[in-house]
Amino acid sequence: MTGPAGGTDLARFSLNQQTVRQWSLPELVAGCAAAGVRWVGLWREPVRAYGTEAAARLVRGAGLSVSSLCRGGFLTAEDAAGRAAALADNRAAVREAAALGTGTLVLVSGGLPPGSRDLRGARERIADALAELGPYAADHGVRLAVEPLHPMYAADRCVVSTLRQALDLAERFPAEQVGVVADSYHLWWDDALDGQLARAGAAGRIAACQLADWVTPLPEGVLLGRGQLGDGCVDLRAFLARTDAAGYRGPVEVEIFNPALWARDGAAVLTEVLDRYQRCVLGVPAVTDR
Amino acid sequence: MTGPAGGTDLARFSLNQQTVRQWSLPELVAGCAAAGVRWVGLWREPVRAYGTEAAARLVRGAGLSVSSLCRGGFLTAEDAAGRAAALADNRAAVREAAALGTGTLVLVSGGLPPGSRDLRGARERIADALAELGPYAADHGVRLAVEPLHPMYAADRCVVSTLRQALDLAERFPAEQVGVVADSYHLWWDDALDGQLARAGAAGRIAACQLADWVTPLPEGVLLGRGQLGDGCVDLRAFLARTDAAGYRGPVEVEIFNPALWARDGAAVLTEVLDRYQRCVLGVPAVTDR
Repeated sequence: MTGPAGGTDLARFSLNQQTVRQWSLPELVAGCAAAGVRWVGLWREPVRAYGTEAAARLVRGAGLSVSSLCRGGFLTAEDAAGRAAALADNRAAVREAAALGTGTLVLVSGGLPPGSRDLRGARERIADALAELGPYAADHGVRLAVEPLHPMYAADRCVVSTLRQALDLAERFPAEQVGVVADSYHLWWDDALDGQLARAGAAGRIAACQLADWVTPLPEGVLLGRGQLGDGCVDLRAFLARTDAAGYRGPVEVEIFNPALWARDGAAVLTEVLDRYQRCVLGVPAVTDR
Repeated sequence: MTGPAGGTDLARFSLNQQTVRQWSLPELVAGCAAAGVRWVGLWREPVRAYGTEAAARLVRGAGLSVSSLCRGGFLTAEDAAGRAAALADNRAAVREAAALGTGTLVLVSGGLPPGSRDLRGARERIADALAELGPYAADHGVRLAVEPLHPMYAADRCVVSTLRQALDLAERFPAEQVGVVADSYHLWWDDALDGQLARAGAAGRIAACQLADWVTPLPEGVLLGRGQLGDGCVDLRAFLARTDAAGYRGPVEVEIFNPALWARDGAAVLTEVLDRYQRCVLGVPAVTDR
């Protein structure tokens, strides 16, 4: 019981744009403002389509702040041209994050190059890229947030698979340059999670916190199977409690990739997400329980 | 280059029954004997359907040995009746393993009970069950082989997800009672793998080695998407080399759940598996390369 539903409970809530992909950027901003949401997590593609500066004005004008920009990364290319292109794209992402006023650029590090079986090499190329990008990001007031993705994505999306591994990587660089993302969907299964969250917090490395629930069966391709908060088996309240206990005080993004949510009215989805966030994450009893 | 293709290269090769699910048990035994395969990994359901004693005679009569029996486990039930049933079923599995002449009973530990979010509790119930089953197994000359399954199965099949976690669990019991399974499909992504394989070997805990490749995209439900050796991104040769370097000298089971293989002629599948095993695991050059 952390108090009645309302303003204070939502102070840290952030709606990641992908949760309501059916909304245009203006719809997202208007919908969040109307619902009392203060934070949004944005994605590069819709922001660039709208115009980065215009998007920044739109968001600011509605009194919203950007919790993070998704996403840079994809740093595992083996060839010089691919590597140079990735670095250039990530520098652009840093500038976009700075323009949007967020200090957090989420990185999905990239999978194995086609035909490669060299996990160790791919991981070292990520470290090499962070060494180049970290100072550039810090100069722009942006921190690179390495996101460990669930191990089921190791082949094709991200060879950084656990919080421990992400921290081992991040700690090779200054904390103001490289942090990590704590996402419940990717990390919930790990028996080392509590200890690694504490480690991340103590080192000041938690750059972002994201929430989604784990539901089965997974869909083909396993990309769009994230669950609405409370629909799955993740103890989301414990997850946030441990992240907070580690010292994290930043926004809490709800990021759910789920076509069933995208097929519905955006405002109805946001209302449901807010209700689930209060009940399943904050532990506020439902209105009917009070 | 470990020598020419032929008998010695296949000395440790074992064909897991699930790789050629289209074969009956007599077909499996005859097919393996004809191909010079010396080991088979069996599953309880087809063995029981055939009759455990009759299966044991059939296998022995063809000069084959059983590398492991799959599977016991599913030890996470919360209720007393479910727990008692699981223990009884696992004792039966121990007796079946002993009757088949294998010292290795593979355990798939079980997922979260329906509606539960208590990972820690589920994991402790597995430890409690191992404490009960371990002495019984050892009395029958059988070792319980805890198999860490890929984290994508944590919710619904197995809350033991990494080799480190499996070893932390196994090491609470004597090495002759509880070991672990090193399966490339489940473990390949883990940056801690090499160190944990060494730890497992040094402690005499590697009870079984299984191979399959990782291919994407994963199918719906993610159960039947294992890849033929060489079709995916796992460095299988390095995986076996590290397992061997840790001191493992036992059979090497190829266990591929893949409907595309099941739709083909079993003998053709075995021929292909043997070719891939030699080229992709042992590093023997293809005939056309010599």
